[in-house]
Amino acid sequence: MSYTTPLRDIRFALKELAGLEEILQLPGFEEVEPDLVDAILTENARFVQDVVAPLNVSGDRQPPVLKEGVVTTTPGYARAFAEYSTGGWQGLQHPVQWGGQGLPQLVAAPASENFQAASLAFSLCPMLTDGVIEALLMVGSPAQQKAYVPQLIGGRWTGTMNLTEPQAGSDLALLATRAVPQPDGSYRLTGQKIFITYGEHDLAENIIHLVLARLPDAPAGVKGISLFIVPKVLVNEDGSLGRRNDVWCASLEHKLGIHGSPTAVMLYGAGKGEVGEGAVGYLIGQANRGLEYMFIMMNAARFSVGQQGIALSERAYQKAQAYARERIQGRAIEGLAGPVSISHHPDVQRMLLTMRALTEAARAVSYVAAAAHDKGKHHPDAEVRARNQAFYEYLVPIVKGFSTESAVEVASLGVQVHGGVGFIEETGAAQHYRDARILPIYEGTTAIQANDFVGRKTLRDGGAVAHACIAAMRDTLRALEAEQADEASGEGLQRLREHFAEAIDAYEEAVVFVLQHAASEVRAVFFGSVPYLMLAGVTHGGWQMARAALASYRRIAEGSNDVFYRNKLGTALFYGAHILPRTRALGSAVRAGRVAELSAGLAGVA
Amino acid sequence: MSYTTPLRDIRFALKELAGLEEILQLPGFEEVEPDLVDAILTENARFVQDVVAPLNVSGDRQPPVLKEGVVTTTPGYARAFAEYSTGGWQGLQHPVQWGGQGLPQLVAAPASENFQAASLAFSLCPMLTDGVIEALLMVGSPAQQKAYVPQLIGGRWTGTMNLTEPQAGSDLALLATRAVPQPDGSYRLTGQKIFITYGEHDLAENIIHLVLARLPDAPAGVKGISLFIVPKVLVNEDGSLGRRNDVWCASLEHKLGIHGSPTAVMLYGAGKGEVGEGAVGYLIGQANRGLEYMFIMMNAARFSVGQQGIALSERAYQKAQAYARERIQGRAIEGLAGPVSISHHPDVQRMLLTMRALTEAARAVSYVAAAAHDKGKHHPDAEVRARNQAFYEYLVPIVKGFSTESAVEVASLGVQVHGGVGFIEETGAAQHYRDARILPIYEGTTAIQANDFVGRKTLRDGGAVAHACIAAMRDTLRALEAEQADEASGEGLQRLREHFAEAIDAYEEAVVFVLQHAASEVRAVFFGSVPYLMLAGVTHGGWQMARAALASYRRIAEGSNDVFYRNKLGTALFYGAHILPRTRALGSAVRAGRVAELSAGLAGVA
Repeated sequence: MSYTTPLRDIRFALKELAGLEEILQLPGFEEVEPDLVDAILTENARFVQDVVAPLNVSGDRQPPVLKEGVVTTTPGYARAFAEYSTGGWQGLQHPVQWGGQGLPQLVAAPASENFQAASLAFSLCPMLTDGVIEALLMVGSPAQQKAYVPQLIGGRWTGTMNLTEPQAGSDLALLATRAVPQPDGSYRLTGQKIFITYGEHDLAENIIHLVLARLPDAPAGVKGISLFIVPKVLVNEDGSLGRRNDVWCASLEHKLGIHGSPTAVMLYGAGKGEVGEGAVGYLIGQANRGLEYMFIMMNAARFSVGQQGIALSERAYQKAQAYARERIQGRAIEGLAGPVSISHHPDVQRMLLTMRALTEAARAVSYVAAAAHDKGKHHPDAEVRARNQAFYEYLVPIVKGFSTESAVEVASLGVQVHGGVGFIEETGAAQHYRDARILPIYEGTTAIQANDFVGRKTLRDGGAVAHACIAAMRDTLRALEAEQADEASGEGLQRLREHFAEAIDAYEEAVVFVLQHAASEVRAVFFGSVPYLMLAGVTHGGWQMARAALASYRRIAEGSNDVFYRNKLGTALFYGAHILPRTRALGSAVRAGRVAELSAGLAGVA
Repeated sequence: MSYTTPLRDIRFALKELAGLEEILQLPGFEEVEPDLVDAILTENARFVQDVVAPLNVSGDRQPPVLKEGVVTTTPGYARAFAEYSTGGWQGLQHPVQWGGQGLPQLVAAPASENFQAASLAFSLCPMLTDGVIEALLMVGSPAQQKAYVPQLIGGRWTGTMNLTEPQAGSDLALLATRAVPQPDGSYRLTGQKIFITYGEHDLAENIIHLVLARLPDAPAGVKGISLFIVPKVLVNEDGSLGRRNDVWCASLEHKLGIHGSPTAVMLYGAGKGEVGEGAVGYLIGQANRGLEYMFIMMNAARFSVGQQGIALSERAYQKAQAYARERIQGRAIEGLAGPVSISHHPDVQRMLLTMRALTEAARAVSYVAAAAHDKGKHHPDAEVRARNQAFYEYLVPIVKGFSTESAVEVASLGVQVHGGVGFIEETGAAQHYRDARILPIYEGTTAIQANDFVGRKTLRDGGAVAHACIAAMRDTLRALEAEQADEASGEGLQRLREHFAEAIDAYEEAVVFVLQHAASEVRAVFFGSVPYLMLAGVTHGGWQMARAALASYRRIAEGSNDVFYRNKLGTALFYGAHILPRTRALGSAVRAGRVAELSAGLAGVA
């Protein structure tokens, strides 16, 4: 088995840390019984393990091929996607009225995580489609929703997001694609988009492109961007497919990783197809508000990419752990006789524990975020909704930034655990290392997340959410201090308390530093923005690990002999000893902004 | 230009930090004038930039091909290697009596670094040949030296080291290749070796394999391993090439990186060739002492791989810096008008400075090590020789471990600076990320370096060298404290002092911790061995950066307007603010051994 869904870990995080029970009682989810959640996760495990996971290697070795405008995906992808669609997986968290299953984000999140772990490249297609569905539900007209949403949720069509152009990456102000209004109310689009994930493929009958473009009279900059629907094949009044639109895949990128996912250069208005010149498009929502719509969708996409980081980390960990247990090499450090598996060597254990601790921490943070999202949308009390929505939005850059940067570290350790064999492509550890590298880049680089975290998430509310988090962390710390440690785990728990307390202090100092200096020393603050985001990530991860330790310790104290709780406790104690102390170095970097600014000036890096 | 040798940086580190002048006055180097060193570095720059650097991409895209036992290297490699040989580059640090140039290690090191930066995959062949030359000079018989060394130094033949077997990676006790004595004093070898760099190729007339194997009556384990010369083509009495030996390349590995370098599975004794069954081999030195010989050579190889880390970091930095200056995107953080190059964004500057600071620090440590090596071999005073030899040996695992782990980080940041374009293979940043990943693995993983650092380098002398380093660091700290900072760099210098002082304390605490607990808590100590090695690396890097800051600051205080010294100072200040604080987290991890051990037990990672 190349990937086994970590069902027990997932259930623990859902129930003990993210409060699944409370979420299932929210209005709208009354019919989602705990048994149903279990059944979904079990069926999800079967499907991803049996059908999707085997595609991970084949996608890497036999990437999609473009020939005369047609993209043929890796053998097996089409069949798996058909099964994905008929299984109803695309509709998990989408509304029942449009054919979805209306499940909480907290239930959709682990299912989606498992798809990503089974095959990141494969699962990008559904992820992009989710974004298109959400955009249509949010700002599409009723007619647009009716025309596209059921087909997308049913997996008969898929979706893409078209933002980037060669001259406009993170800076969308530079977008140049043009949309010219037509007498019939539609538009004709002309331009080139790059890095379009699943921009062309053979998995579905139609592809619905959401495209950012400028109207002829639009203001310059980001306030002149509108959002358009551009279907690959136009849809007739009766819902049947009509003429081939003037949108074409010009080439596919040759990438470091996620080879199974076609990354297309898309041409709008090449003058081919059956509609004459220019791609036929339809405005969504209001003109010139495209970027705003994209930003709302972005939170969902960023959350999903954060989950990809967790998924990839989990898979890299499983592979490294299995290899370490099977590879016989060297003797025990104590000099005892006989060769042992390398999983007995302290440094291999250190690497494996680092991988596991980072993965579990990131997962817990993401589920806590998903629960906040659900409460933010569904809680009957408006004040609770607002508080949770704010908490969710605060956590999104952390989930994206921390999980994906961790994934790069975890995948790199995964290669290292394998030694020389890890560098050989056939082993598979290297693929995770290659795949992971896109995660801190797409859907907003880590620096973009950090800008958001400083600007929208810390400064805009004067640090209110941050300080609320810190107060809640101190509650957990007090609960941890109230536990009487037994002899076996005493020193570990004591250290966890100390390191968690230190981390909270470092986090608080950083928040205060950012609030105090953002106006007077903006450049200095932004020199520390990524360390600040990572500091928050490590501390939020530590918070959830501390909660996990507490829950596990109580079970053990109650007499449970279940090895699962010992494992959880062990991983949490390791996080305390090896990961939480990073906050000291990160906090130092946050406060060093003026020196970094001075250094940059002297060193002349600009 | 894809790579420009950082000549000014190199000269600064050689002269101001590593004491080139003193080295050139050592007995044996009297004839090496400073002008000659400059001429060598200038010619080296021309050659690597014009001839070698262009091979880096082609080697990656058109790797060597094996067909019917013959390996054809990437187009251009053979011509470049011929030029390398006729240029005398292989003989740089080898004895004049064998056709070498007898230069100090301190001069050979930057030349070799530049070759590695120009093309890591290409330069692996000379690196392996160096190892074979050194082994022959050290333990080969006069006849063996005469037969092989001049050919190897002249670049007409190349060399390989054959250690690893499928069941024996880091643990050579498990070696199974057999050597059976023959009536004529030679041996016949049978076995399989893997991961043999340049095990077969078309760059030279002959390949001299050094092979670890067991005699029939050898004791089990590492004390029963002998070292053999196995030429691809046997050498006749008169030095001419004779019969084709029974050693064959069975396959080439498909690797994550360094594609241009053929990594061979080698079969000894396949029954082909012109010598009958079994590969003809010749014992080097005494029987059963092979591992000891390999270990002596290993220091040189490990030093070289450390240099590869520096080389790759430099190249990744140059690429990222060039892109950041050319890529226009976004506005200045202060909200000033107009798009700017991304090199103006604080987080891009943070990444570039991190890359540059790690590279310069690692380079300085490696040159200081090379100087110690030269003094250890050539100083007239035996006590000075012994002290420097011990210092060199102490620094080797640091050079290997710190430079290569840094290279992975630097190459990863190099991709990140490029954003989405970095993930596209054609850009070239991804190649560095792939290539870098082998560095912390081959010639002894980071864990193996850390074991060596704890065992042979810290415990064996009771921490004597470590404490001597700490005392010398405190001297530098005092010198730094004596400087009156001007306003412009005041805060940076003040912070550098504080962080350097903290780092020295953390380093000292870690040394004391290791010395005190190694006997009573061996497993706990080894849980912290890699953090301990990294802590030493960051601190030694900080020491050299502090010395660089001091030297630069003095030049500026003397009135120099040379922007070079401002740059150096800026990079050093950044190292103080952003890199040195890592010692706090690392020191914490070193001392957390017992908790890590407890965690591993609870988490059941074994």
